[in-house]
Amino acid sequence: MKTPPPGLAAHSDRVEKHRPAITADDDRRQKTIVCPTDTVYNRGLPQVSFEIVAECPITRARAGLLHTPHGTIETPVFMPVGTQATVKGLSARDLADDLGVGILLANTYHLFVRPGPELIRQMGGLHRFMSWPNAILTDSGGFQVFSLSGLRKITEDGVEFRSHLNGDLHAFTPESTVDVQLAFGSDILMALDECTEYPASHEHAGESMRRTVRWARRAAERHAQRIADSPTRHALFPIVQGSVYPDLRRECATALLDLDADGYALGGLSVGEPREMSLEMVEATEGILPRSRPRYAMGVGMPAELPEYVARGVDMMDCVLPSRNARNGYLFTSQGRVVIKHARYRDDPRPIDENCQCYTCKSYSRAYLRHLFLSGEILYASLATRHNVRRYLDIMREIRHAIISVEYPEYLRTVRASCADAG
Amino acid sequence: MKTPPPGLAAHSDRVEKHRPAITADDDRRQKTIVCPTDTVYNRGLPQVSFEIVAECPITRARAGLLHTPHGTIETPVFMPVGTQATVKGLSARDLADDLGVGILLANTYHLFVRPGPELIRQMGGLHRFMSWPNAILTDSGGFQVFSLSGLRKITEDGVEFRSHLNGDLHAFTPESTVDVQLAFGSDILMALDECTEYPASHEHAGESMRRTVRWARRAAERHAQRIADSPTRHALFPIVQGSVYPDLRRECATALLDLDADGYALGGLSVGEPREMSLEMVEATEGILPRSRPRYAMGVGMPAELPEYVARGVDMMDCVLPSRNARNGYLFTSQGRVVIKHARYRDDPRPIDENCQCYTCKSYSRAYLRHLFLSGEILYASLATRHNVRRYLDIMREIRHAIISVEYPEYLRTVRASCADAG
Repeated sequence: MKTPPPGLAAHSDRVEKHRPAITADDDRRQKTIVCPTDTVYNRGLPQVSFEIVAECPITRARAGLLHTPHGTIETPVFMPVGTQATVKGLSARDLADDLGVGILLANTYHLFVRPGPELIRQMGGLHRFMSWPNAILTDSGGFQVFSLSGLRKITEDGVEFRSHLNGDLHAFTPESTVDVQLAFGSDILMALDECTEYPASHEHAGESMRRTVRWARRAAERHAQRIADSPTRHALFPIVQGSVYPDLRRECATALLDLDADGYALGGLSVGEPREMSLEMVEATEGILPRSRPRYAMGVGMPAELPEYVARGVDMMDCVLPSRNARNGYLFTSQGRVVIKHARYRDDPRPIDENCQCYTCKSYSRAYLRHLFLSGEILYASLATRHNVRRYLDIMREIRHAIISVEYPEYLRTVRASCADAG
Repeated sequence: MKTPPPGLAAHSDRVEKHRPAITADDDRRQKTIVCPTDTVYNRGLPQVSFEIVAECPITRARAGLLHTPHGTIETPVFMPVGTQATVKGLSARDLADDLGVGILLANTYHLFVRPGPELIRQMGGLHRFMSWPNAILTDSGGFQVFSLSGLRKITEDGVEFRSHLNGDLHAFTPESTVDVQLAFGSDILMALDECTEYPASHEHAGESMRRTVRWARRAAERHAQRIADSPTRHALFPIVQGSVYPDLRRECATALLDLDADGYALGGLSVGEPREMSLEMVEATEGILPRSRPRYAMGVGMPAELPEYVARGVDMMDCVLPSRNARNGYLFTSQGRVVIKHARYRDDPRPIDENCQCYTCKSYSRAYLRHLFLSGEILYASLATRHNVRRYLDIMREIRHAIISVEYPEYLRTVRASCADAG
C-alpha cells in the first residue's frame, strides 16, 4: 500500500518510527517547542506533492502517488477516521504495520475541544501524541461545528459554537483553524468551509458557497504567512461547496483555482442528498479542478460507492462507515454484508470473509465474533474494525490495480453487476 | 516465560498455531465431533505434570515447570482472566505472541450461560473457539454461582441457580461441571466446590468444607470415568476450603490427598477476609499438600501480594485485578500506582512505566492514555490492559529469577520494604 519515496520516507522513518520511548528528558526538551513546524524533527521535509502514474482511458479514474512528509501514499486512497486521535479500537501498530494504512484522518473539532491544540502542540504534535508514523489529514472542524445545530452561530468572520462536552463558547475562523491544524502538525490541512445543510435553496446555497470561497482565501493567506519562514511540511486544501447545484459547484471550483492549492476537496456530500446527486456533484467540477492535483471527496462512502467516486476522478476518500459499522455489528465482505448478531452465525466456524487475509479472518470464526458481540466484549470492536478497515483497503488496492492494468471500466461493470445482483 | 517441552509443544504448535483459517469444510468436519477429547487433534497428548526446578532454602517458594498439552509454563505463574473466552481488550496474538502468556483462566459459569458448552464443543473446544494456542484452566463455576445470592439453592447433589442473563434455571453438580469443562477441552479443570461466604461460623464452615470434599470425590470419579478410554489431556484439581479456620483447612487438605490429584487449589480466599488471614490459610496447608504437585491460590492478588503467596509455596495465581483495574484507570508500575485520570498526567510525555517494555509503554505517553481514558476510547482499555498484564508477568519473572538465583528472601525483603515506604 505504501511505498516510501527515495530519501524522504527513510528520513521520516528515522525520526518517527525508530524513536526511543518518550522520557523525562524529552519532556523537558518538548516544553521549549513553539510549534511542531519549528522543530529539527520537521526540517527539510518537502511539501505535499502528487504524481499521476496511470489514467483510465475511458473513465476519469487515475492512479497516483501522494508524497507527504510522512511517507508516500498510493492513490486512490481510503483514509480511516481517527476522530479523537485514535481509530476506535486499533493501535498505531495495528493500523500502520498490520493493515498498511499510510494516511488517516483526525477531526479538528473533536481534538480542539479535547485535549486541545495547545496540549497536542506541547506534546510534539499529533503524530507524536498518537504515536502515528504515517501521514495525517485533519478536517477544518467545519462539518462537526455545523452539525451542532442550536449550538452555533455563523458570521462573516467565522463560526461561534458551544462545546458538546461542557457548553464552553469557542469560535473558529478561517485563520484560527489553520493555526489549530498547524499546532497539530497535520500533513494536510483543510480550509474552514460552511457545510451547507441539505436541502437548501439555490439562493442560500449560493451565499453559503461564496462565503466558503472568501474563507478559503483567508485560510490560504494565513497558511502562506505561517509557513513563509520555514520549509513547510503542511499542505492546505480548500473545499468545493455549492449544495446540489452543478452551476454553484462549478462557480466554486473555478473561484478556488486562483488559490493554486496543493489539492482540492469536495465537501457537502453525504449530508442526506440522493446518492446519484452526490456523484453528479463530483462530475460537475471534475473538468475544472486541475488534473495535477489530488481530489478528495469528503465523508464517502459505502464499499460499492468507492469505485464510482474514483471513476469520477476522485483520489482520496474518508468515512466512518468501516469502523462505525464494525462496532454496530455490520461487517463488509467480498460476498456482501454479514450482520454478526444474526442467529445463522451462531455456530458458523467460517471467518467473516474467506477471501480476507486480515488477522481477524485468519484467526477467528463468525461464531466467536458473534459471541463477543452479544457479550459486549471490547475485543469484538477491535477485531471487527480491523476487518472492515482491511476490506476497504482491499477494495482500494483492487481499484488501483484495475486502473494500472487498464481494466478499470471492466472492473466497474463487475462491481455494478454484483451490486445489482445483491439487490 | 514459556519454554516448549521437547516434542510436546512442537506438536501442539503444529496443530494449533499454524492451522489454516477455518473453512466451510472444517465446518462440516466439526459437526461430527462428539467431544474435543475424542479428536485426532488431541490424541497422544500426555497428562498435565509438574516439575520443580529450584526451591528457596528459607521460604517455601519454588520455581517449576508445569507441562500441559498446550505448552510448558514456567512457575510461579500468574494467569490472566479471560472470563467470556477473551481477556477483555486483548487478542490471542496480543496475549500469546506479544505478552508471552502461556496459560489463561476462563470462567465456566460465564461460558456455560453464554455461549454454552454444547456450542463450544461443537466449535472444536475452547482453544479453537477463542483461537488460543496455549494452556487453559477453567474454574468450576462454583465461585460465580455462589456469588448469585438469591438466585441459587445448594443441596447435597449440587447447586441450582438462575442465569444472570435471562433467569433460566440451571444446575451444576460435581459431575456436570466436569462434563462442561471437558466439553470446553480445558487443560486444567477445577472440581465443583462450595465457596463458603465470609464470615462463617466454625460449624457452618466445617459442614460446607466437608460437602466440598464429598463433591471433589464425585468430580474425581466422573473425571476418571470420562478419561478412562482415551489418552487424556485434562487434569482435575480439587479445591481446599475451610473458611478462615486453620484446622478445617488442614482437615480438608488431608481428605483431598486421597484423590492423588494432579494439583491442588486453595479456594475461598479474597472473599472479604483480612489479608494476613488469607496468607495464614495458605500456610496452614502448605505442609500437607504434596510437594510434587502444583498449588494454585485462586483469585489473588495485588502486585505486592504475589511474592507473599509464592513464599508460602504457591505456584499458580489468577486475578481480574490487572485487567479490571486497567479499564478503571488504575495502572501498576514498578514505581507504584498511576491513576491515569489525575490532572498531573495531562501533559506528561513519559510512558506509564519507564522500566516497562510493553508496546503501550514503548509507544504511548501518559498524556495520550489520559486523553483516551477521558474520551471513553476503547483503545485505552486495550493499551492499559496490555500494560497491567505485562506488569504482572514481569513481577512473576522477577520472582522466578530470584528463586532460581537463591535470592528469594532478599527479594521478598526488598518488596516488603518498598511497600512499607509507599505507605
